[in-house]
Amino acid sequence: MDNTNDFVKDITNIEEDFAKWYTDIVLKAELADYTDTKGCISIRPYGYAIWENIQKYADNKFKETGIENIYFPVLIPESLLQKEKDHVEGFAPEVAWVTEAGEEKLDERLCIRPTSETIISTMYSKWLSSWRDLPFLYNQWCNVLRWEKETRPFLRSREFLWQEGHTIHETEEEAIDRTLKMLDIYAGIAENLLAIPVIKGIKTESEKFAGAVSTYTIESMMHDGRALQSATSHYFGQNFSKPFDIKFQDREGNQQYAYQTSWGLSTRLIGGLIMAHGDNRGLKLPPKVAPIQVIIVPIAQHKEGVLEKVYNLNEKLSSKYRVKVDDRDKYSPGYKFNYWEMKGVPIRIEIGPRDIENNECILVRRDNAEKITVKLEKIDKIIGETLEDIHNSMFNDCKKRMEEKTTIAYNIDEFKENMDTNQGFIKAMWCGKEECENKIRELTGAKSRCMPFNQEKISNKCVCCGEPAEKMVIWARQY
Amino acid sequence: MDNTNDFVKDITNIEEDFAKWYTDIVLKAELADYTDTKGCISIRPYGYAIWENIQKYADNKFKETGIENIYFPVLIPESLLQKEKDHVEGFAPEVAWVTEAGEEKLDERLCIRPTSETIISTMYSKWLSSWRDLPFLYNQWCNVLRWEKETRPFLRSREFLWQEGHTIHETEEEAIDRTLKMLDIYAGIAENLLAIPVIKGIKTESEKFAGAVSTYTIESMMHDGRALQSATSHYFGQNFSKPFDIKFQDREGNQQYAYQTSWGLSTRLIGGLIMAHGDNRGLKLPPKVAPIQVIIVPIAQHKEGVLEKVYNLNEKLSSKYRVKVDDRDKYSPGYKFNYWEMKGVPIRIEIGPRDIENNECILVRRDNAEKITVKLEKIDKIIGETLEDIHNSMFNDCKKRMEEKTTIAYNIDEFKENMDTNQGFIKAMWCGKEECENKIRELTGAKSRCMPFNQEKISNKCVCCGEPAEKMVIWARQY
Repeated sequence: MDNTNDFVKDITNIEEDFAKWYTDIVLKAELADYTDTKGCISIRPYGYAIWENIQKYADNKFKETGIENIYFPVLIPESLLQKEKDHVEGFAPEVAWVTEAGEEKLDERLCIRPTSETIISTMYSKWLSSWRDLPFLYNQWCNVLRWEKETRPFLRSREFLWQEGHTIHETEEEAIDRTLKMLDIYAGIAENLLAIPVIKGIKTESEKFAGAVSTYTIESMMHDGRALQSATSHYFGQNFSKPFDIKFQDREGNQQYAYQTSWGLSTRLIGGLIMAHGDNRGLKLPPKVAPIQVIIVPIAQHKEGVLEKVYNLNEKLSSKYRVKVDDRDKYSPGYKFNYWEMKGVPIRIEIGPRDIENNECILVRRDNAEKITVKLEKIDKIIGETLEDIHNSMFNDCKKRMEEKTTIAYNIDEFKENMDTNQGFIKAMWCGKEECENKIRELTGAKSRCMPFNQEKISNKCVCCGEPAEKMVIWARQY
Repeated sequence: MDNTNDFVKDITNIEEDFAKWYTDIVLKAELADYTDTKGCISIRPYGYAIWENIQKYADNKFKETGIENIYFPVLIPESLLQKEKDHVEGFAPEVAWVTEAGEEKLDERLCIRPTSETIISTMYSKWLSSWRDLPFLYNQWCNVLRWEKETRPFLRSREFLWQEGHTIHETEEEAIDRTLKMLDIYAGIAENLLAIPVIKGIKTESEKFAGAVSTYTIESMMHDGRALQSATSHYFGQNFSKPFDIKFQDREGNQQYAYQTSWGLSTRLIGGLIMAHGDNRGLKLPPKVAPIQVIIVPIAQHKEGVLEKVYNLNEKLSSKYRVKVDDRDKYSPGYKFNYWEMKGVPIRIEIGPRDIENNECILVRRDNAEKITVKLEKIDKIIGETLEDIHNSMFNDCKKRMEEKTTIAYNIDEFKENMDTNQGFIKAMWCGKEECENKIRELTGAKSRCMPFNQEKISNKCVCCGEPAEKMVIWARQY
């Protein structure tokens, strides 16, 4: 039996070169691949199945709160993009332009949507007339394109898949409620589906979405202590409804502008999954999102009765869990163990002639390598409990790391030292000036991630300039 | 109570101007709307919910046969599009080109995918090495763009949503099997989900997909007797695998080119639904795909106990059916009846104080306006049976129309007369020459839709030139 781990040999050590480790995992686990279209990836079946699980979960959560799906054009005329000043400044530099079509030059350039506020707002303006029509609670699942200079699979791809929700409301209060409700749903997706703890907070002015009144975010910490902005929810006030003329007759018969929100999560989350949970053996997938939750590896599969027993077990378990049998005769069990560990499957079941004799099997956990013998009549129940336990354990590991790599800084020297010795999140007070954010970034590479909802009164002085400060900010280097 | 039917007044008569009737329905039933991006529509919640039901049904059917989902870039470099000669000739005239991005001119133009054979083939070439890797059974749900000159919502939109399946196989036989298997699945979707009967067949050379060895199709008949190509499945042989170098080591150790297929269905089907089933009262939706299957309209809803009873009934039915209560106090029951008929909801339930006293309700069918009184304890079961019956009845209506509007022609004069007096499908023999297809088209506006699998030996002479003919072709004017 071949027990050398060829896969691990091919994967860069996670502590040596995290960026290279990441790319190795993406390619080796067949999540995605580079394509001839520069900066764009193709998502392979194993990666796409993760996305489908995220979609299904999120879409259900959205619909439970009354959201309906919809679809708007991928191409947006340049004149529409121009209508909201901050928005065009933020997005115009990174869009792709269609200038020719059907063998003719176009009169007006069309951009491929980097996000859809502008085209959606024109339609909302058309569809809205009375307060009775409100709210519009719409979402679309689609592709978007942003012409990034440096790209990385999933994390920063020129094209990516996402959902973008766009709602309009009668009152400011209702719109802000919706913004925060979606943030809570996102936090639930990260924590309950992906086993990634997050910090909820509000972005500073310089980090908010182009055109928003305020941007809310969930921030998570990756293996190397860097932050990943995992999803955002924006409150627009009337910033778009005024230039796009989204008006309605209110209860008193007056014309009013609607209050608007938007919110999105993307295939970036798959990058987050990899970097939050992976290790030197490869990918480590949280059970609820894993395309395969249980891999069954037969031992001595040529011996009589082994494969029969294995197929039997597979059939029994498949009604409840996502199970697969690896009965490839080309590979040894040892090879298969390593292969499926690298692919991050939460539970492996080994079953051979002796196990069958004893009416049992071996169950191995991917997260902590724990190995137990289980009676076959109990396997169904044990798998359910173990998957639950793996989820909790993976969540707690991430949480522990986040706690260990979160420090406090009272001045810029401490800030620098913390960041250099224990890269992670830094809690520090901030005066509110953009120049302090810029200076911190120049000196340490860290940016403000958010002003967390859970504020702590660390001090009353800005970590950078020492002037009076009321806001605690979470700072980090970021993806 | 207001019983005038405002909706019907606003909808053009179906016999007077079918094209205008169609557009009225699309807009009035809020399925889709025109946008500022010329030739592109936005799909509204009611239309998108239909698409989601089609997607869910189709995706399950695909996966049952081993298909996995995947995602490839929306942008394709011009050089890739050029690699297969017929393919580029067929598609290059109708693509949109990105020439500028991120404020720079691009070195090479990128087209927005009109279909993805080329970019997918480059990846298959990269991923394939041994016969053991085969087959690749992949599909993607995505948007595509074709720069049509004349557009119509759903039927011919510059951007549309679809799925495109792309498979590669070890042998020709296996690839052809897959092509036909997908055609069968498409026929099942049309008939069992959408209640639209179809004719399965193979396209003539001039009508096949650019780059295919052969194209299989399902053709359905619309209200006005025109044909709608509802989905297609293509066998490519090695037409793409050779230029794109999709090679593998076969069982004997030799290098072989793979055999390839592709197959797609699109949001066009929503146009088909409208035109196959609709009438002068509006949309008529087949129950399995209807976003709302049962609409409950309270009568005298201000009276004590009515709304309570209605909400109760709604809750009871919602676990099994897609049900909605229309409790808007702004509108009369008569208005609501017309509104939901126009929206095509298969079953309406009316319930008022007297019904409640008698422990019953009124059930009205959208398809035939039949009205029955049902005891409330039986309503659950009756709805299930009625939905089934509506599906069958709608299917049979379409089938009957297809039979009535299908004629036989032995010569071109008969052909013309049939087409002018009873626009529909014409069965006629064809010699196999493209010039006869062209001549028939010029004289009658009809094109060859397919050579149906069910061949009938009508005569042995071509309907156009009178020369020997072995193939019976279905001809029609088309959407």
